[in-house]
Amino acid sequence: MIRTMVEPVKKVVIVGGVAGGASCAARLRRLSESASIVMLERGAYASFANCGLPYHISGEIDDRDDLLVVSPQVFRGRYNVDVRTNTECVSIDRAKKTVMCKSLADGSEFSLPYDTLVLATGASPFVPPNLASAVKEFPDKVFVLRNLSDMDAIQAKIAAAMTKNNGKCTAVIVGGGYIGIETAEAFARRGVKTVVVELLPQLLPPFDPEMVVPIEDELKKNGVEVKLGTSCSGIISHGDGIRVKLASGEEVEADFCLLSVGVRPESTLAKNASIETGPRGGIAVNDHMQTLTDPSVYAVGDVVEVKDGVMNVEHLQIPLAGPANRQGHIAASHMIQGETSVIPNDRTYRGTLGTAILRCFGRVIGSTGCSEKFLRGQLKMELHKDYEKVYGFFNSHAGYYPGAARLAIKMLFTKNGGRVLGAQVVGWGHEGVDKRVDVFAMALAGRMTVHDLEQAELAYAPPFGSAKDPVNQLGFMACGVLRGEQRHVFWDDDRILQRVQAGEVILLDVRSVSEWKRGHVDGAVHIPLEQLRDRLQELRDVVGDTKKPVVAYCAAGFRGYIAQRILDNSGFDTAKTSNLSGGFEAIAKLFRFAPKL
Amino acid sequence: MIRTMVEPVKKVVIVGGVAGGASCAARLRRLSESASIVMLERGAYASFANCGLPYHISGEIDDRDDLLVVSPQVFRGRYNVDVRTNTECVSIDRAKKTVMCKSLADGSEFSLPYDTLVLATGASPFVPPNLASAVKEFPDKVFVLRNLSDMDAIQAKIAAAMTKNNGKCTAVIVGGGYIGIETAEAFARRGVKTVVVELLPQLLPPFDPEMVVPIEDELKKNGVEVKLGTSCSGIISHGDGIRVKLASGEEVEADFCLLSVGVRPESTLAKNASIETGPRGGIAVNDHMQTLTDPSVYAVGDVVEVKDGVMNVEHLQIPLAGPANRQGHIAASHMIQGETSVIPNDRTYRGTLGTAILRCFGRVIGSTGCSEKFLRGQLKMELHKDYEKVYGFFNSHAGYYPGAARLAIKMLFTKNGGRVLGAQVVGWGHEGVDKRVDVFAMALAGRMTVHDLEQAELAYAPPFGSAKDPVNQLGFMACGVLRGEQRHVFWDDDRILQRVQAGEVILLDVRSVSEWKRGHVDGAVHIPLEQLRDRLQELRDVVGDTKKPVVAYCAAGFRGYIAQRILDNSGFDTAKTSNLSGGFEAIAKLFRFAPKL
Repeated sequence: MIRTMVEPVKKVVIVGGVAGGASCAARLRRLSESASIVMLERGAYASFANCGLPYHISGEIDDRDDLLVVSPQVFRGRYNVDVRTNTECVSIDRAKKTVMCKSLADGSEFSLPYDTLVLATGASPFVPPNLASAVKEFPDKVFVLRNLSDMDAIQAKIAAAMTKNNGKCTAVIVGGGYIGIETAEAFARRGVKTVVVELLPQLLPPFDPEMVVPIEDELKKNGVEVKLGTSCSGIISHGDGIRVKLASGEEVEADFCLLSVGVRPESTLAKNASIETGPRGGIAVNDHMQTLTDPSVYAVGDVVEVKDGVMNVEHLQIPLAGPANRQGHIAASHMIQGETSVIPNDRTYRGTLGTAILRCFGRVIGSTGCSEKFLRGQLKMELHKDYEKVYGFFNSHAGYYPGAARLAIKMLFTKNGGRVLGAQVVGWGHEGVDKRVDVFAMALAGRMTVHDLEQAELAYAPPFGSAKDPVNQLGFMACGVLRGEQRHVFWDDDRILQRVQAGEVILLDVRSVSEWKRGHVDGAVHIPLEQLRDRLQELRDVVGDTKKPVVAYCAAGFRGYIAQRILDNSGFDTAKTSNLSGGFEAIAKLFRFAPKL
Repeated sequence: MIRTMVEPVKKVVIVGGVAGGASCAARLRRLSESASIVMLERGAYASFANCGLPYHISGEIDDRDDLLVVSPQVFRGRYNVDVRTNTECVSIDRAKKTVMCKSLADGSEFSLPYDTLVLATGASPFVPPNLASAVKEFPDKVFVLRNLSDMDAIQAKIAAAMTKNNGKCTAVIVGGGYIGIETAEAFARRGVKTVVVELLPQLLPPFDPEMVVPIEDELKKNGVEVKLGTSCSGIISHGDGIRVKLASGEEVEADFCLLSVGVRPESTLAKNASIETGPRGGIAVNDHMQTLTDPSVYAVGDVVEVKDGVMNVEHLQIPLAGPANRQGHIAASHMIQGETSVIPNDRTYRGTLGTAILRCFGRVIGSTGCSEKFLRGQLKMELHKDYEKVYGFFNSHAGYYPGAARLAIKMLFTKNGGRVLGAQVVGWGHEGVDKRVDVFAMALAGRMTVHDLEQAELAYAPPFGSAKDPVNQLGFMACGVLRGEQRHVFWDDDRILQRVQAGEVILLDVRSVSEWKRGHVDGAVHIPLEQLRDRLQELRDVVGDTKKPVVAYCAAGFRGYIAQRILDNSGFDTAKTSNLSGGFEAIAKLFRFAPKL
């Protein structure tokens, strides 16, 4: 049980002092008192909370110092790590095992020897080539948001504009990913009128498009303008502000612009030292976080390419704080202890699930594992052949206890065996999304199946959950699909509306009369569930000898399923009966179907 | 994929219409339109939310009708189930396959034939023999809380007492389990002055004693009196109220008394029909929920004995709604479809984890899997030989984002292999307990290890979690224990205070000067962590040639661990260095250590 020194580590240089680098340094010191550990950080701070930046802009995190998670002083005192902030690593000489460093304070250069080098240089905001000149020319009007200095500059800009314009300020955010949306909310909370421009036809590219519709709606409801499917073709200075040109020809004026169109691994240092990078420009590493090129050089965090933890697809770029920390931990353990451990695969990185969550005003969206886009695009998987999916709408806790948030969940699983592949959760409220995402993340980590979800025993008391938790219910649905008891069809994939309009399917609305009156799909046959058994002949008459499929639907999918079972067990052809997954809520809230009355 | 009829089921009678019975009936109908399904319910309602009863008393659930989850009308209309409320099943003739029923409305009796019988008779509140007469004699003063009628009676009593006594009312609750505590809170919210009496020296018997201390404190803080380690020896009428006699000799006067000393399976009906029961009086069933005695009789829910889902210990009584629902589902599937399924073990009950959660005013406590009491008592497992444990204190979300609740978590895992055995979570606030309990429940269901927890990739954004979630951190600790890098000692198990006082161990406080001044353990050596490397000689001088163990401690356990590593890697004997698990927070908040200054 006592640690084995694989080789005596003398000098470790870590380039980058935020998540991955800082975790690596701390773990390293806990494993060895004798190692000399130097951590170089280009910025003014080591280990700051970059995920917190938008929340300081919004005013929710009042004290800027709260963002400084572990100060260089603590790193020195607690870990005896030689932290050098404002210091850039400019080159690596792998033959001599030295790095050349430059103090950004006084420009002086110096060389450091290493036995082991860790590259934790992170990723930097991507600036599209056509906007690069604007960033250079108008640094006080075109920003990125990566570190505290960026945040300070944006805050100063907002304050200055508001002082000048009687409390008014306008901004354009180019890019509708996590940072774009978090910052749009922060701006709105500060009273900055904001336009979000996104090249893709959807916000939050890692999600499936229908799942982010509630987030788009929420931004708009809170006064943020959203322009999808258009790129920014240029930014020009215009008086005190800027004018952002869109590919659509439209121009938007604002006091300033934030570019948040994604990040790119900061791998130039590695490339210049002939360290292999992958197709996305990230450093190529093995499972122990060693570069493929040089075993005495490790790389961790946003600068590396990873595999996904569900399907083992390689060469992905998934910049997240949690995985960066784990990689730093593994790299440190591996360089001190090698591969031998009482714990199997102790020093092997498992891949990244991409678990993530975002609050957007009153709503929350989160995801873990594969999206359907990923399955279809990256893996060429086919619905009903390789994978299955279900949608469900639920209350975050028992409906009879007040204050529950409505949740929409989409879950993907393998056709053969029912292994969970991924889940996306949206909440109309702040409660319950994070919990379900985490439960799914554990199911993915354990390579668990939808049957495991059906059987999951989760905490239930009225303020916290339900005796049949949403996770159980999704398990029921998915197992029903595997057992052949449930057949889900999908508003978009199965083009239900078009097929109803073309007279190709019979849509059976089994909701109550009052629900029907509040809105329904034109052309649907309406028989409330409670009357269905007695009115089966009506439905048989409609079908006649047309052999048309019957698609049942209700509010959220449960009564539609019962209706489908009644038909199945009453002599209807089970090859022709199905249930609209997620029911009317799915088509109204995710697929933007606005019924006409 | 089309279901196979193992045998045609004609007539199913279900005795009991709440969780397990109702789930069974609904599932049964979805599998068969032709079955005749009769559901007998002794009470006035089928499928009501008994977990919600205290929350209606408290006023949080305003509308009593909200507790009626699925009405008999819905059961009839939606499921074509013949629901007979106010109807008791009085006997079973297994030879003739009939049950004798009695209408509680008019006393009439009738017989029903069955092909398959499902016993879902639940569990009834246990009334200790010495209190039975009081329950009978003063039904308007001594209550149990199992159904809506009980709730109505209690509400009426409170209202009457308050009307009479200028808004004042007093109550004694005998039994400090889930229902006792939930009802104590409800009473307090209604302004009823309440005393809770518990026979054991701790509240909430399923938990380890130190973990419920914060709940006891919270009750007291909110004006509820708690008397532990004393039984109720009698209840006598006293004017308009009662006088409750305690074994201690004390007497407590109150307007009324609630007995909540646990439940017992309602298995008399089964016993009278010679159906085998187990050592705890619950019906003995196989994995498909068939009684061991008669394959055409199933039993589900609180009336059966189960095995635990972690260690497979049999003959347990774990009355919970979620497991009851799953058992009902399995019984229905098995009687229609037999054992064959595309899903492996589809119709096999896995055992019960006992996942549960309780809110108590501003605090929350939850648990899943085995407690340490269970491991030691039931399984005779030994700490450090068979199992290990760790305590940790964490914020429910990133500390730099406001509003986090403090969490205390105790986790148990196997010494050999690190399989997670159970976890208990207490929160000072309403956020984050349910989520961590559910994450642990998934780890248990997936037979996952503490290394899986270390690697878990959970949702992180500042309002929801941390880049290193509490679950990850417990994984780090536990893996550190397995790797031999962390050695945890425990305030109670290792009798630290006594050993410090006896001069047998050196206690090393590595907190800051200001923390030390706010409170510390008498006799500890104080060297702030940041100074430890420079002051090692002081510690060496104290140890001298005594070879005394050095136990480090800090606020919550992390700096103590770093200190232990510094000693380990600086030549101290690793067999003699350790860290106090959970640090000062554990000893102050869980072990009631009040430092003298």
